[in-house]
Amino acid sequence: MIDLDKPQIQQRFDMDAAADAIRNAYIASATGQVQAPPVTYLGFDRNNGDCHVKTSHIAGTDAFVIKIATGFYDNPAKGLPSSNGLNILFSATNGAPLAILRDEGWLTDMRTGLGGAIASCALGADGFERVLIVGTGLQCRHQARCLQALVPDRKLSFTIWGRNAAKAATAAKELAADGMNVQVAPDLQAACQGAQIIVTTTPAQSPLIQRDWIAPGTHITAIGADSPGKQELATELTANADLLICDDAAQSLDHGEFRAARSADLIGAGGVTALGLILSGDHPGRTDNAQITIADLTGLAVQDAAISLAVLDGGPDH
Amino acid sequence: MIDLDKPQIQQRFDMDAAADAIRNAYIASATGQVQAPPVTYLGFDRNNGDCHVKTSHIAGTDAFVIKIATGFYDNPAKGLPSSNGLNILFSATNGAPLAILRDEGWLTDMRTGLGGAIASCALGADGFERVLIVGTGLQCRHQARCLQALVPDRKLSFTIWGRNAAKAATAAKELAADGMNVQVAPDLQAACQGAQIIVTTTPAQSPLIQRDWIAPGTHITAIGADSPGKQELATELTANADLLICDDAAQSLDHGEFRAARSADLIGAGGVTALGLILSGDHPGRTDNAQITIADLTGLAVQDAAISLAVLDGGPDH
Repeated sequence: MIDLDKPQIQQRFDMDAAADAIRNAYIASATGQVQAPPVTYLGFDRNNGDCHVKTSHIAGTDAFVIKIATGFYDNPAKGLPSSNGLNILFSATNGAPLAILRDEGWLTDMRTGLGGAIASCALGADGFERVLIVGTGLQCRHQARCLQALVPDRKLSFTIWGRNAAKAATAAKELAADGMNVQVAPDLQAACQGAQIIVTTTPAQSPLIQRDWIAPGTHITAIGADSPGKQELATELTANADLLICDDAAQSLDHGEFRAARSADLIGAGGVTALGLILSGDHPGRTDNAQITIADLTGLAVQDAAISLAVLDGGPDH
Repeated sequence: MIDLDKPQIQQRFDMDAAADAIRNAYIASATGQVQAPPVTYLGFDRNNGDCHVKTSHIAGTDAFVIKIATGFYDNPAKGLPSSNGLNILFSATNGAPLAILRDEGWLTDMRTGLGGAIASCALGADGFERVLIVGTGLQCRHQARCLQALVPDRKLSFTIWGRNAAKAATAAKELAADGMNVQVAPDLQAACQGAQIIVTTTPAQSPLIQRDWIAPGTHITAIGADSPGKQELATELTANADLLICDDAAQSLDHGEFRAARSADLIGAGGVTALGLILSGDHPGRTDNAQITIADLTGLAVQDAAISLAVLDGGPDH
């Protein structure tokens, strides 16, 4: 069995191969070519922790994947990261264990970054350049890096806004050190008005972004909302968008960014389109450069399978 | 992270420690001290395979366990074992991965053997000696070895019956080579009549054992039936037993040995008692040596957690 730790995974990671794998996973998911049983959950109240086990298989691929992800939220006070975990791959041909990827959650961060970037590329107006990232955490960095990586032919112009200006400055400095074109946005409303792509990455519990701040032609990729009570975009903005996209409609409408508009009956259960159908060409996606489009991504187990397979396929021992 | 393969697990395995852990797991399960979410299933029709992922935690223990078990039933034709898998332990305090036990299914076989032996010891008539094992496969060996190990003060007298007399002879020879007292039973009815403990380990789809073959005072541990359609004991035998015991009532009544009697409305949903309540002393169990008792064991995820913890605790690196 191949056993890779986080540095080894990072060393053999290929962004383009991972992006291809994740695009294919979105398509497979939207067209019913996956097995992804319900997520298993354990809670550890005494230690403020939890564990999610996600099992999935993409039809036609060599391996199925079990991702075990833990979050223990008092860990930082003990000098430990709050997130941990690993992905295990088994042969879909004979059931033998193939590999353990002890990524400590890094592959989840990367697949979330790539998933957002793929959505932004698929739905952004032609030739977009001005990108606003809302939030200053880990996904701020991943979303920016992944999006620039997927648009190698032009240098994007990023602005970063956060409630904490110092954290925004730190994130901007880090990304600039990678050679990216990044500035801090002092005012969220003005930053929204000037952006062609907005990527929201916050755990906001009340909407940060209002409807009349968004210019025609803007695409928004909303990453932050992943449980009831979290919401980054005004309900009115979501309800009046020209196109609503998701990775998983049931999740988005139940506990993602689209929950509020659905609860208020402002959008129907059939009012959201799977990203995979746009990537496959089965749905036209954006049809003119004045449309406002919103993608809400809550995460798919098959993305974990896809990125794990890409790591395994990318190695010298394949 | 500790990484042990099957020989290493076998080397540090301690039968008594494992039996204690499994007893405690039955008690914890019966008294609501466990987390054991629904089992996750993937199917691989093209390769005649499947995978079950079982996640569980026993309150108060240091680690939770994810067991991944695969069965690919065309493997033997390719020279591979049909079963494979591993158990992974994570800290219940900080979520870090602790150990991977690449047991290839051996720990599942052992916990099944020990579970049956624990049930037989708990419910057998005082000082039982005569044990009949029905079936000649892997669990024939494990049930016999585990039961003898749990009764170190007296040498049990085993008989083995199987549809295939040659296989029964092979099993008896193997166990005799371990120093056990074993004979082949030529006739199942006579063997049942002479036994104090009967352990059934077959995939029979119609009852092998009839009601009037069973003498007063006999205890039966039924291991084989684990899906609808499998049944080892006559429905009438089950329906008229003095005490019905199970590891998990919902499983036994839905797809275990007790399914047939429950479907015919011959036993009630509340007519079965959890083994853990007998082990804890909350239920008296057998109250006289003329009672006929039946234990149906379908397997608990917390047994996987318990035996994995016992292996981890037993090592020099603990």
